[in-house]
Amino acid sequence: MNPLPEPKFISLEGGEGTGKSTQAALLTQALRARGIDIIQTREPGGCDGAEEIRRLLVSGTADRWNPMCELLLHFAARCDHVAKVIGPALANDQWVVSDRFTDSSMAYQGIAQGLGRDAVSELQKTILSDFSPDLTLILDLPIDVGLVRVRDRGGEDRYERMDPGFHRRLRQAFLDIAKNEPERCAVVDASPVSSEVHANILGIVRDRLGLPDV
Amino acid sequence: MNPLPEPKFISLEGGEGTGKSTQAALLTQALRARGIDIIQTREPGGCDGAEEIRRLLVSGTADRWNPMCELLLHFAARCDHVAKVIGPALANDQWVVSDRFTDSSMAYQGIAQGLGRDAVSELQKTILSDFSPDLTLILDLPIDVGLVRVRDRGGEDRYERMDPGFHRRLRQAFLDIAKNEPERCAVVDASPVSSEVHANILGIVRDRLGLPDV
Repeated sequence: MNPLPEPKFISLEGGEGTGKSTQAALLTQALRARGIDIIQTREPGGCDGAEEIRRLLVSGTADRWNPMCELLLHFAARCDHVAKVIGPALANDQWVVSDRFTDSSMAYQGIAQGLGRDAVSELQKTILSDFSPDLTLILDLPIDVGLVRVRDRGGEDRYERMDPGFHRRLRQAFLDIAKNEPERCAVVDASPVSSEVHANILGIVRDRLGLPDV
Repeated sequence: MNPLPEPKFISLEGGEGTGKSTQAALLTQALRARGIDIIQTREPGGCDGAEEIRRLLVSGTADRWNPMCELLLHFAARCDHVAKVIGPALANDQWVVSDRFTDSSMAYQGIAQGLGRDAVSELQKTILSDFSPDLTLILDLPIDVGLVRVRDRGGEDRYERMDPGFHRRLRQAFLDIAKNEPERCAVVDASPVSSEVHANILGIVRDRLGLPDV
């Protein structure tokens, strides 16, 4: 068996209904089965304070917050999440798999909600300095497929209720992020059944980060 | 009677127990009595969304949030407050008196909680551009006097429970802000009885902003 690689921080990104939570769970299980000490978390949320902020973000009408206010709430939750969960885990030699991280702020508030790239980049630099995932998996799906999945699982949240134009901009924003940062990001076709998507993700993780043989 | 001056935005700042809320109410009444259309508001809070964020900030243990997370929650609340209350009021030719604004973020999180001036200034610029009060009244009081007043009115909130070193740094931070921006800021001695402090404040407002004769 190869020695375990250094602890890594992996984020899963993508629009609504692309299967991020399912894939985060499958990936975490698969890495744990290979002897990797790993935690699974999510944004917005992931710890008590951030989950309280999450409740302000996912409930209520679609126009409840203006985009800048919303961006700040997301970064506040992220700040708590990094300080209390992600940072301590990595320092403790644990891997971290997070369902969403900073790319969601860029795609949702920066692009789809129209705040602009610069505002998000400037905040990101001030708040997180150069802290970022080692690998970001961007799950991509035609938006009509994603939104049908969301409806089928029952109950839409505030983001899922936004208009189709919003979801189109969002998908393109994630693809643009992947194109601009190919070393950190990989686009994953989220159309196949979840076991096939999982196998593809595991292949990417093996190629990019190295993994011990089972 | 002189014509009414352009609508102005006045903030009251200072540490705990300095009488900001009382003076904001007295000032609002006095300006209204002079025929000025005016609203009184406060931070963090001032509208529904921002008041929900306020609840996250003022309750719980003193170490509940790290300073950056706390700063972002304050700016998120402020963003909502400017978009929904302060901006629309000024656009509607109303004056605004606010119990706290951005200087509190600089004094509390930037200086007293140690985040640094640059982080607060950078966020302020990204979020608010150059929007700032026309006049800021900084109520100044020895910290032991202020904290006794807080205890006497019953019940301390999360900030009021912070240690004496915190409150000393806070007082100095507000005095430094006034020193650095003398055109916008005026320091007001908050030691006398409230009617005397009010008379002094009214004199400053008259000198700096101009007021119609009664």
